[in-house]
Order: sequence, then structure tokens, then C-alpha cells
Amino acid sequence: MDRRNRLAGQTGYLRHIQACNPAIEEPFLPWLIAGQIVGWLRPQMAEALKAHDRVFTHTGDALVLHESLGDFTARTNALQQIGEWLAEQGVTGSLMGESYPVTPAGREAAMCVIDRAIGAYFGIRAFGQHLNAYVRRNGKLYMWIGRRARDRLVFPGHLDNMVAGGLPHGISLMDNLLKECEEEAGLQPELARNSVPVGAVTYNRVAKRGYRPDVLYCYDLELPVDFVPHNMDGEVESFSLLEIQEVAHLVRETGEFKLNCNLVVIDFLLRHGFISPEEEDYLALVTGLRQPLVGIRPASY
Amino acid sequence: MDRRNRLAGQTGYLRHIQACNPAIEEPFLPWLIAGQIVGWLRPQMAEALKAHDRVFTHTGDALVLHESLGDFTARTNALQQIGEWLAEQGVTGSLMGESYPVTPAGREAAMCVIDRAIGAYFGIRAFGQHLNAYVRRNGKLYMWIGRRARDRLVFPGHLDNMVAGGLPHGISLMDNLLKECEEEAGLQPELARNSVPVGAVTYNRVAKRGYRPDVLYCYDLELPVDFVPHNMDGEVESFSLLEIQEVAHLVRETGEFKLNCNLVVIDFLLRHGFISPEEEDYLALVTGLRQPLVGIRPASY
Repeated sequence: MDRRNRLAGQTGYLRHIQACNPAIEEPFLPWLIAGQIVGWLRPQMAEALKAHDRVFTHTGDALVLHESLGDFTARTNALQQIGEWLAEQGVTGSLMGESYPVTPAGREAAMCVIDRAIGAYFGIRAFGQHLNAYVRRNGKLYMWIGRRARDRLVFPGHLDNMVAGGLPHGISLMDNLLKECEEEAGLQPELARNSVPVGAVTYNRVAKRGYRPDVLYCYDLELPVDFVPHNMDGEVESFSLLEIQEVAHLVRETGEFKLNCNLVVIDFLLRHGFISPEEEDYLALVTGLRQPLVGIRPASY
Repeated sequence: MDRRNRLAGQTGYLRHIQACNPAIEEPFLPWLIAGQIVGWLRPQMAEALKAHDRVFTHTGDALVLHESLGDFTARTNALQQIGEWLAEQGVTGSLMGESYPVTPAGREAAMCVIDRAIGAYFGIRAFGQHLNAYVRRNGKLYMWIGRRARDRLVFPGHLDNMVAGGLPHGISLMDNLLKECEEEAGLQPELARNSVPVGAVTYNRVAKRGYRPDVLYCYDLELPVDFVPHNMDGEVESFSLLEIQEVAHLVRETGEFKLNCNLVVIDFLLRHGFISPEEEDYLALVTGLRQPLVGIRPASY
């Protein structure tokens, strides 16, 4: 069933936060490196990994990366081999050749990397960057919104933030943002550098491929009124400049946006005063966009 | 010991969030109205309330407001009488004559009201409003900071947001903000109405008088460069206009600010890009300012 129809009859901002944070009913198993949880596995994936007992040690209800794999490179190589095997066996899709951090906390604390495609099945925390690009004209605020290409693997044809992308390992936040701005919107570094980091949206989702605890770093960028985005990498079909009330309406009343982009827009609306604090769900929205991240939170929480 | 000395030797933004969200070691007992938790009591307060068994029913590990108190007025009157008795007995301080909402969720869901002084001992969620007042001049951002009067009950002589106040029951957010702006900073409604609601900071503190789950609605207000605040109610000793980097330094390196005002400033710094997302504690700060509020969160979280 199409995602837009699935949401038919439901409206409001809060349903998007709820959809990104479902009750976890599957018995995901944690996997650990050096005593710290770095991801979560479906039982069938844990079962498949029994064939690799020199890499994963099975305890009662967890998997532990073998302690003989004592450094970044050794862990990375072992996970790369397992990834190739999983892809060959058809347990997962093909490798993507992009290295994603495996970390119990922020990306700077990565203990090794894993291929992006495999990471999705290993329930690692994924990091991304989303940009709210807006224009002020005659006292009104407009936001640039993209429509995803029809051949995209996830959410084809849905609405999207003007720039949004995943964060591989080993590249700075600013460098990755500049790269994404250029590829997705033809936005040159001179302008893209004006992006203001404004926080992060966090959620703990269950996706088709596995558990998905995501962190989206959010940015605001006010653009000149005459700037027009041009997609360079084929990921975006078209861009539209919409008045902010129209964007708010699309988020509140429809399922047009890619699921997690709704949260980024809601965060923008909250920070810029476009959602009234008298609104019934206000506190649920404000706190709901910042799900606590086990492992990132200090021990005293 | 002075709070500033207690923090001596400690620096960083995160310690303020930790101080506002300590591990709860005391055995607070929940109290309920119509099946919903509305506050938390110290065991000795629960014990004192045994003298009022027509108002509070003691179950094993909770107190329940007697079901015969079936509406807003009946509950309010019963709690008022108990408040007067507690003040007379010297168990609490004197009544303040301000009605605060008693609610399992947001303030609009109040099931009755309680005197502000008594509410502090009953661990009810308290709501407040804090205003970040700032000025842009020559490409720099400055923030108006108040210094609290030396005769204030809490945090005398400490730094404070330009306007900050509690939210009594039955007044709209905007009306209360306008009132506080006028009393605390001599800020007239014409200017104060430009305040932009930008979210809320939440924390679960343990204060001298009891458990303190607070919600601070936050506002940003850009002021004309020639505006100068004047305190009208004696709560503020003086105001200073400080460059934002100086404000950030005071929060990060000292204990000069009233405890919860640190969180409001950190939220401002995060939203305006003055804390780099590459900073190690970034995600702990972003999520730490939005503690989940049991009762406000939808059931599916």
C-alpha cells in the first residue's frame, strides 16, 4: 500500500513523530564492542552470524564482537568480510562501498566502520544532515522543497528537504554538507557556508531492514531571493518555493513528505514560532523530536 | 556553600543539564487524580497527609486524591485547606496566593489548582516562560542579561535571562509574557509582542522543597539597538548587554547564572549556531534539554 494512502484519514504533526518512534515489539538483540552497545540485530540475523563464531561471540541475549578484534582496522576488516558473505548469500542487498561509523555514542567515537548497506541490517546509529533552505520576501517566509525522483529506492516521488544526505565516516560535518549542497541543489560553497547548525532531530525507528536509531543534524540557510536550486545527481525531480504556511499544511494534513523530513520541518516550525505553544500537542512535539539516545546520554541521566 | 563555589573547578555546558536532572535517589511517592499522576511527594509529606484521609487515600506506594472530590472546584478547595494547614503547622512556607495548575500533561489539562508555595512541596509540574532578548549590531549579536536582586529568595545576585517568570493558571501564554516583560524589564507590549516562541526546555530536578519537573517555554526577541531595559518590580538589580561569546563563556566556564537559565541560554546557543555540532557533547546537549515528560508523552512512546 502506498505510504500516502496509509496515512489517509490521519492528520496532525504528532503522528509523524509517533511513526518514527514506534513501540519496539520485535526482540532485537544488542551487539557490543568492548562492552558497549553499538547496534541491534533481528534474531534471524543473529542466527545467520553463528556461522562466524570467530567474529561474533553469542552470549545469552547479545552478540559480542570477538575481543581478539582489538582495533579499528581489525574490526572493520572482519565486518567487511561478513558483509560480503551476507550479500553473496542474499541475506542482505549489495554492498554500497560507503563506510558508516559504528559507535556507542556520537560519530567521533566510532570504533570501526561498516558498509552502509550492511549497517542498515545491524541496527547501527545512522547520522545524516538536513538543510532547511528558506527565503524572506516582503515579510513572508518561503521554503525550498524538493520532490524526490521517481526511481529512488525509498519514498520515490515524495517531498524532501532541499538538501538531505547521509554522513559517511571520516568527513567533517561542514565538508559533507557542502558536498551534498552542491550535488543535490547546485548550491555553491560560498552560499552553503552560511548554513547555521541549529540542533538535531533524533528518533528510533523500525525499518524494513532493521532497527534504525537516527540522528539528523539540522541546518537553516537563508538564501537570496534570486537563487534557484538545480539538482545535479538525479535524486531530485524538481524544486518548489512554497510559503511556509503551505509547507506546514503539507506536513500537518498529508503524507506527502518523506517520513523523517516531516520531523525536520516540524523542528523548523517550532524554532521559528510557526507552531503556537498554546497548541495541545506542543510539549509532546518539542520533547518528541529529541528521543534520548542510550549510549550518548551521560551515565547520570 | 555558595552555589558558585560548589561549581568551582567544573566547566562545560553539560554539567548544568546534569545538575537539573540528577539521578533520583529519594523514594518520592506519586500522587494521582482520577488515575493520572500529577505530582510526587517526599515520604514525610505523605506521612503528614495521613491526617487528611478524606482528601488523600493512601495505597501501597501512592496517594490518590479522594474520588469524592469529583471536579475542579472541589479538588481546589480541598488542596487549599490542606495548604493552609501545612503552612500553619510550619511544614511548608506561607501561601503565596498564586494558583498553579495541577496536571498530568500540559497546563491546559489542569484538573485543579494549588497554591504556588504548596505546589513546590507536592512535586507538581511547574511551567514558566524565559525570554532571550538580543540585539544585532555591526554583524554581532548581543544579549541582555539581568542580575538578580540580592534579596531574592533563590539565587540572589546571580545572572538571569532578561525576562523570566512562572506561569499561573488561567492566563494565556502571551498575556503572562507581556505582564512579565513589563514588570521585569519595562518592556512595553508593542515590542514584547514581537517575541517568537521557539520551543521549551524541560528538566526533572530535585529542589530543597521537593521534586521539580519543570517546563520552560522559551522565546527569542530581537530588540532595537536603542532599547534599554528598566526593572519595575525590584527583582532585578541591573541589566547588561553582553556579546554572545561572553554570555557563552559565562555559562560554560562559571556558575554565575541561576541554574535553569543556563539551559535556556544553551538552547539559544544551539539554535543560533553558536555551539558547533562537532563539539563532543553536542548530541548530549541537544537531547538533554528535552527530558521526556511522563504523562505528556503519548502512550506509544
